[in-house]
Amino acid sequence: MKFKVVSEVQYYTLIPSTFIFNLHALNTASQKVLRENLSLNVDLKIEEFTSTHYPNRFIRLHVPQDICFTLNYDAIVETSSQLVDFNNAQEYTQIAYLESDVIPFLFPSRYCQSDKLQRLAFNQFGNIENPFLQVKSITDWIYNNIEYISGSTNSQTSAFDTITERMGVCRDFAHLGIALCRALSIPARYFTGYAYQLQTSDFHACFEAYIGGKWILFDATKLAPLNGMVKIATGRDAADAAVASIFGNSICNYINVNCEFLDTDFISMNYENDNLKGINCE
Amino acid sequence: MKFKVVSEVQYYTLIPSTFIFNLHALNTASQKVLRENLSLNVDLKIEEFTSTHYPNRFIRLHVPQDICFTLNYDAIVETSSQLVDFNNAQEYTQIAYLESDVIPFLFPSRYCQSDKLQRLAFNQFGNIENPFLQVKSITDWIYNNIEYISGSTNSQTSAFDTITERMGVCRDFAHLGIALCRALSIPARYFTGYAYQLQTSDFHACFEAYIGGKWILFDATKLAPLNGMVKIATGRDAADAAVASIFGNSICNYINVNCEFLDTDFISMNYENDNLKGINCE
Amino acid sequence: MKFKVVSEVQYYTLIPSTFIFNLHALNTASQKVLRENLSLNVDLKIEEFTSTHYPNRFIRLHVPQDICFTLNYDAIVETSSQLVDFNNAQEYTQIAYLESDVIPFLFPSRYCQSDKLQRLAFNQFGNIENPFLQVKSITDWIYNNIEYISGSTNSQTSAFDTITERMGVCRDFAHLGIALCRALSIPARYFTGYAYQLQTSDFHACFEAYIGGKWILFDATKLAPLNGMVKIATGRDAADAAVASIFGNSICNYINVNCEFLDTDFISMNYENDNLKGINCE
Amino acid sequence: MKFKVVSEVQYYTLIPSTFIFNLHALNTASQKVLRENLSLNVDLKIEEFTSTHYPNRFIRLHVPQDICFTLNYDAIVETSSQLVDFNNAQEYTQIAYLESDVIPFLFPSRYCQSDKLQRLAFNQFGNIENPFLQVKSITDWIYNNIEYISGSTNSQTSAFDTITERMGVCRDFAHLGIALCRALSIPARYFTGYAYQLQTSDFHACFEAYIGGKWILFDATKLAPLNGMVKIATGRDAADAAVASIFGNSICNYINVNCEFLDTDFISMNYENDNLKGINCE
Repeated sequence: MKFKVVSEVQYYTLIPSTFIFNLHALNTASQKVLRENLSLNVDLKIEEFTSTHYPNRFIRLHVPQDICFTLNYDAIVETSSQLVDFNNAQEYTQIAYLESDVIPFLFPSRYCQSDKLQRLAFNQFGNIENPFLQVKSITDWIYNNIEYISGSTNSQTSAFDTITERMGVCRDFAHLGIALCRALSIPARYFTGYAYQLQTSDFHACFEAYIGGKWILFDATKLAPLNGMVKIATGRDAADAAVASIFGNSICNYINVNCEFLDTDFISMNYENDNLKGINCE
Repeated sequence: MKFKVVSEVQYYTLIPSTFIFNLHALNTASQKVLRENLSLNVDLKIEEFTSTHYPNRFIRLHVPQDICFTLNYDAIVETSSQLVDFNNAQEYTQIAYLESDVIPFLFPSRYCQSDKLQRLAFNQFGNIENPFLQVKSITDWIYNNIEYISGSTNSQTSAFDTITERMGVCRDFAHLGIALCRALSIPARYFTGYAYQLQTSDFHACFEAYIGGKWILFDATKLAPLNGMVKIATGRDAADAAVASIFGNSICNYINVNCEFLDTDFISMNYENDNLKGINCE
Repeated sequence: MKFKVVSEVQYYTLIPSTFIFNLHALNTASQKVLRENLSLNVDLKIEEFTSTHYPNRFIRLHVPQDICFTLNYDAIVETSSQLVDFNNAQEYTQIAYLESDVIPFLFPSRYCQSDKLQRLAFNQFGNIENPFLQVKSITDWIYNNIEYISGSTNSQTSAFDTITERMGVCRDFAHLGIALCRALSIPARYFTGYAYQLQTSDFHACFEAYIGGKWILFDATKLAPLNGMVKIATGRDAADAAVASIFGNSICNYINVNCEFLDTDFISMNYENDNLKGINCE
Repeated sequence: MKFKVVSEVQYYTLIPSTFIFNLHALNTASQKVLRENLSLNVDLKIEEFTSTHYPNRFIRLHVPQDICFTLNYDAIVETSSQLVDFNNAQEYTQIAYLESDVIPFLFPSRYCQSDKLQRLAFNQFGNIENPFLQVKSITDWIYNNIEYISGSTNSQTSAFDTITERMGVCRDFAHLGIALCRALSIPARYFTGYAYQLQTSDFHACFEAYIGGKWILFDATKLAPLNGMVKIATGRDAADAAVASIFGNSICNYINVNCEFLDTDFISMNYENDNLKGINCE
């Protein structure tokens, strides 16, 4: 499936500031960037880099004081996510056989305090045997119990807050899903991307859980079809995969995001209880 | 300098459990493991692995129920840490020029909520110009304001707690140091190791800050000489570099740790205010 | 019903310390202290006082350094709690008609952060119409979802922790019950007392909710019969009704507590779903 | 000194709602309401009441759905606060001699977690002998270390947050001052009022500490002269003395507050280091 993704951000710097943006579409086994374009309306050096820790594509920009700059990114991306059948899945991957690269995604992180959620997770989801169904139950529970309220939380809100205060945005839904998975010893990671048919025009956040040897996509907000996501980044949580990390002081004038479907006949997909197939878009 | 390091841990499993241990000495540019030995008193497969995220050396052990096992590790390690002169250092590394691999150590993590400490860090340490002196001031402040009390905290205690409750152990001192550095946009990472002349015979935790293009060792507890450390692991915080991560249920019977100096005439080194030289043991 | 209650506490002072104890049985409309005795094994002035805020009976003791003292209290108490029928109760008391003295028990307190639990409380218990059944459902939910583990929490643990970490002792069960009631605009207060047939021999904590114009007793731990309680104190939470508040520094050597039934044929009472009668022991 | 105080609040109810307002000026030994007027622009019953716990003057209003109402209060108030000389004060009141009514103000409350701040408070302020100077030092420290930023916090922010995050509004400054006092075993209570020359036209919050047998006024914000305050209420913290507690759902359209000096020649007073006189306005 082909998508056109577009983002435009504008900032005004109050002091000299360094920006690290993470808004490029990733190239992965199931996602190819066919064409892309990045432009900046001021004459400043843009440095692209990748972390050895993650494949995420960062750009870095050092901007003097009192500059208003606009960064435009657009890309044509082809995705080919695979369906993985979990109808007969019986056990989740044992820690004893987990690939070493996956192990860090078992540990708690800044916004996903899985160490504090173990009893809650085991009581609520511990006796579900099918591992896909277990994570699906987590997302359903979040969807039913947490209210999506724009502006209700901030960049310091974590899963420990959300489980009690019961409100949040996509970032908070993802953090809580990740924390509950890790509390059950299921590796889970944060996912940011462009999302087709997302009801608000913004970057989207959801999460991937590692089941049956594959990273499977989940979205507790149910605000966009699972097969319409274009991946930007993965990481332990929003601290690793923020769209913009700013060192300095600046004002964000606006962020515009769009995701368009370029083929015909998009058939939206979400998970059903009677047919346990998961989306793998590694 | 040559050290002999020894650790012995004994656990009893209540249910089938997977253990991930991280107690091997690292091989780095400034640390060579000359000889080492690992033994387990029961006939179980020991898997060694390294994460692509970090060079840390993990071992994994899957243990059936009702087993009491003892793991012994000893090694002869040669360290050759370098002194870096910061007497004339004027500015800390600008984010704009930071190596991409170092950038993740700017971000908040589970036990180091640097995003909540920015005002405090800037008010207290923001106007110190020499970057080495800035981090040294952080460790001095922690040493003077946080009381070291064995058993006063637990595995969920974080820098956000410690800054207010003003007590903790080496792990908490390290987390607070890291969080304050990151709040000032200084990359910082958790360090675990064997420590010569450590007053309690245990694994030790301290931290490294990235100054002038090098990782420099700091220890806010002042419980052991800085040049007597044998590195086991580095990571974002204790979630990445726990000596033991246990998936299952078990009882720890004991942990014995020792670090012996094999050369003659150990001259202990700690940082002085009138001669700003830092230890780099990358 | 007649009970004999006994408590004996022993402390050793490390510095001159002031103790405020709250272990006397209260005199209320439904509880009469028939006979009581207080003795101290050292020659120190004991001051008894009552707060204008609450009827609780405090004693204050100023103890020099290096004193080991034992305080003994025993009393014969007659209780005559009343059963209130809520089988046809339809609505909880409207705030508009609430007595002014009861209003403070609607507000959040140190260990009962009801302001953070409103969505959770409304989602879980908001559509239960019978107010007695609503509070009973809260206690049943706590009983089923929070694990009673001695020593799992400390004096700083609050309802905000317990709702997530899902473990605690009687104090934590009471705080969570109070917080959930207040989140639903039901006044609730902390209750400490001697409890007949309590499985551990200790002071007990539970709570009262204000329903239909009366304070009704609830105990989410289900560790003792509701009609075997001898009230010591009520308050907003444990901050108001601690058995011992200590200003200074001391070591508690032991606390012994006992509650004996002096009549014959104790018929223990707990709440049943098919007959909604509440205990009022104001 | 005579002041005219005025407040006007307008709300729109989305569902039937009960409002408890606390905006009347108090009558105390040092403050007399000479004349006052309350008016409501809709025909609804206004109930006035006083809590037995506190002398605060509440009004209660039950408002149907879809009503926009405006409440106007104005009063002429004469204040005669006294100066208490602490130049030779040597010790703070011992707990052993504290009046029983004052004791509850030693305990932690919802927004003033003094139990978590004891080490910090003792380290920072423990060795100041003059009790007035000790509390003055607390307010100076808060003034110098916490940044006053309108809108930076919300109704759930507590002293535990403020001590670390280092920003807040008058409510947060007061809560932190109270928590630090109580951590040092100095009784302290929340104070709300009208404040002459307050830079923003709003209700003001500060606090009183109990020193030398009297409640002495302190304001860590330094935004208004201490002798220009007209007291509305005192309580343990903002949970006890909120200007408006709303049970239901409504929109606040505006709050207008004013405080005018009716005599001539107002000589503003704040505390000086070289002359330790405190204001008592009980």
